[in-house]
Amino acid sequence: MKEKNSLLEAYKQSKYQLVGHGPRNGQVLKEAFKDIDGHQESDIYGTGKVIGDFEEKMAKYLGKKAAVFFPSGTMAQQIALRMWCDNKGIKRVAYHPLCHLEIREEDGLKELHHIETILLADENRVIELEDVMGMKEDISCLLLELPQREIGGQLPDYKTLEAISKYCGEKGIKLHLDGARLYEVLPYYKKSASEVCELFDSVYVSFYKGIGGVAGSILAGDEAFIKESKIWKKRYGGDLISLYPYIISADYYFNRRIDKMDQYYEEAKELAELFNKCDFLTIKPLKPVSNMFHVYFDVPKEKLEPVMIEVFKETGIGLTNRLNDNKDGGCYCEISTGDNYENIPKEEIKKALKILDSVITEII
Amino acid sequence: MKEKNSLLEAYKQSKYQLVGHGPRNGQVLKEAFKDIDGHQESDIYGTGKVIGDFEEKMAKYLGKKAAVFFPSGTMAQQIALRMWCDNKGIKRVAYHPLCHLEIREEDGLKELHHIETILLADENRVIELEDVMGMKEDISCLLLELPQREIGGQLPDYKTLEAISKYCGEKGIKLHLDGARLYEVLPYYKKSASEVCELFDSVYVSFYKGIGGVAGSILAGDEAFIKESKIWKKRYGGDLISLYPYIISADYYFNRRIDKMDQYYEEAKELAELFNKCDFLTIKPLKPVSNMFHVYFDVPKEKLEPVMIEVFKETGIGLTNRLNDNKDGGCYCEISTGDNYENIPKEEIKKALKILDSVITEII
Repeated sequence: MKEKNSLLEAYKQSKYQLVGHGPRNGQVLKEAFKDIDGHQESDIYGTGKVIGDFEEKMAKYLGKKAAVFFPSGTMAQQIALRMWCDNKGIKRVAYHPLCHLEIREEDGLKELHHIETILLADENRVIELEDVMGMKEDISCLLLELPQREIGGQLPDYKTLEAISKYCGEKGIKLHLDGARLYEVLPYYKKSASEVCELFDSVYVSFYKGIGGVAGSILAGDEAFIKESKIWKKRYGGDLISLYPYIISADYYFNRRIDKMDQYYEEAKELAELFNKCDFLTIKPLKPVSNMFHVYFDVPKEKLEPVMIEVFKETGIGLTNRLNDNKDGGCYCEISTGDNYENIPKEEIKKALKILDSVITEII
Repeated sequence: MKEKNSLLEAYKQSKYQLVGHGPRNGQVLKEAFKDIDGHQESDIYGTGKVIGDFEEKMAKYLGKKAAVFFPSGTMAQQIALRMWCDNKGIKRVAYHPLCHLEIREEDGLKELHHIETILLADENRVIELEDVMGMKEDISCLLLELPQREIGGQLPDYKTLEAISKYCGEKGIKLHLDGARLYEVLPYYKKSASEVCELFDSVYVSFYKGIGGVAGSILAGDEAFIKESKIWKKRYGGDLISLYPYIISADYYFNRRIDKMDQYYEEAKELAELFNKCDFLTIKPLKPVSNMFHVYFDVPKEKLEPVMIEVFKETGIGLTNRLNDNKDGGCYCEISTGDNYENIPKEEIKKALKILDSVITEII
């Protein structure tokens, strides 16, 4: 039995939760299905109107010829990289050292596909053109994650993206976008999704981060690529008889939130300024470029957690549901704005941060 | 665009559908969630009460130490075989020539794991003890499917099962159960699920065949095996942030139908007798040993389909939604009884079969 996570419990019990769109509970699904007619037919093993229509809609939104719905991004991205490797005949790809495939998938890419990975750039910054140009070995595919989640959601300049895309095109390197949070960076880039995706050969997007759906992802690219990805989807056991619970909720929350990404971005910048006024924490990036930033504390997680729980209880503001150990002995948390933020009185947030800052002085 | 499947359409539009529990539509999910409180928390990446409780319940039902919920059986079974191969250090398994892994998974086992497969027995019969004893090469795991779906749901004698289990135990061969339709054979064997599963080292069961849920499966075995399977589940991208839409519906329909398996079995035998009265078709097995049998016609699919559609329209009885080409130039369909059957007047079924039989004489 896992020990009770008291920070998470205190967060859930707070009057306000700072992060995201609300609790991940059955209501998320029930709301998406509220107006769905019971006669709505299921997709059947990847076919049928409900999946076909959504794949077509997302292909169009992303400016790609075709798209396929996957139960997870893990599955979609491993498959994309595998296909690009087979395509070129070189089992080698490159990505950031903190790429999801490198640190959060139990080495699926290596265990299932024996693909060699080259880690580009320093852990603390995004991949630049020079990193790509400096590679000694030939690769089949370069994966870029926009924004780079594990370092607070940082982004390269758009000109850098364009230059990397051009360089890869010239060198015969396929460029894949880990766009788990793609929608969330469009306000900063001031670009449409299809404009960004035009720089990439293949694209993955998610439906449960900024969109707030139940689960699921889309992989998009040209027609031959997507057709072959469906074979791999079956090999992985991802071609479920029915994916409609995820598809219908993805579509519902996409429609509801896709035009709110500007708002989340503006709110993240506003919130970041409030955090920046605290003395005993730092945030990364200092000025958010999406709806996300990370907050770093010079205090070990074990010492900060009980103090934070007290702050939640005293102020009614749940600031985060999770603290992560940091390599330097301190800890950090991730803040991302969603529907919750607009309903929290700003004065209450300021008060909570002020109290947090003052209690940290006592334990530092 | 796939061409319109007119047999499927005619089946759906019939007053009665002979097979299964009813249409696969949104109502299946909505009904399972009708009484679920919106505050019901989601599972989060394989943890949480909703997934933990169901895994525990199914482990107990199957008489195994532990269980894990997977989005699909394809994923669960490939992982089970991979682990048994790693365990023994021999990348070779054996199963029936018409095993799901061999014919319906785009060779995932071979493409992802490079596992060699030995095909036991003739395509038209189940695996017997002699087939297992006759293997020249050592294997890590033998997979048995109960019932053998692609040949109409045939079963070995229970004594044969016990003998195979004993032999494998002695030879250090792990025995894995493809129990996609395990519940459906318990009435014939007159055994509990845990009695059957005791003969196997690992077991997979499904929730959308006899149970009629939305999708999903359980893999069960000892604690170390299940613990490691969770690592592979993450590697495959099957460790979704939320699997509760499948889990809650699996649990709901399991509770609703697990005690109806006797009824489905008796009904299948009754229905098989009606089919057996027809002159121009044969069924396999002649006497069902589960809720399933296959119906063979000496007529090519293209000739039978339009005739069958007319029978559906004339009689209001949709007999099948799909005809499959058979190697001998004829065709066949699968019949499985579920909740639909009890609501259809038997005289109407007899009438439909009589008309079908007579119209086949005209095209044979």
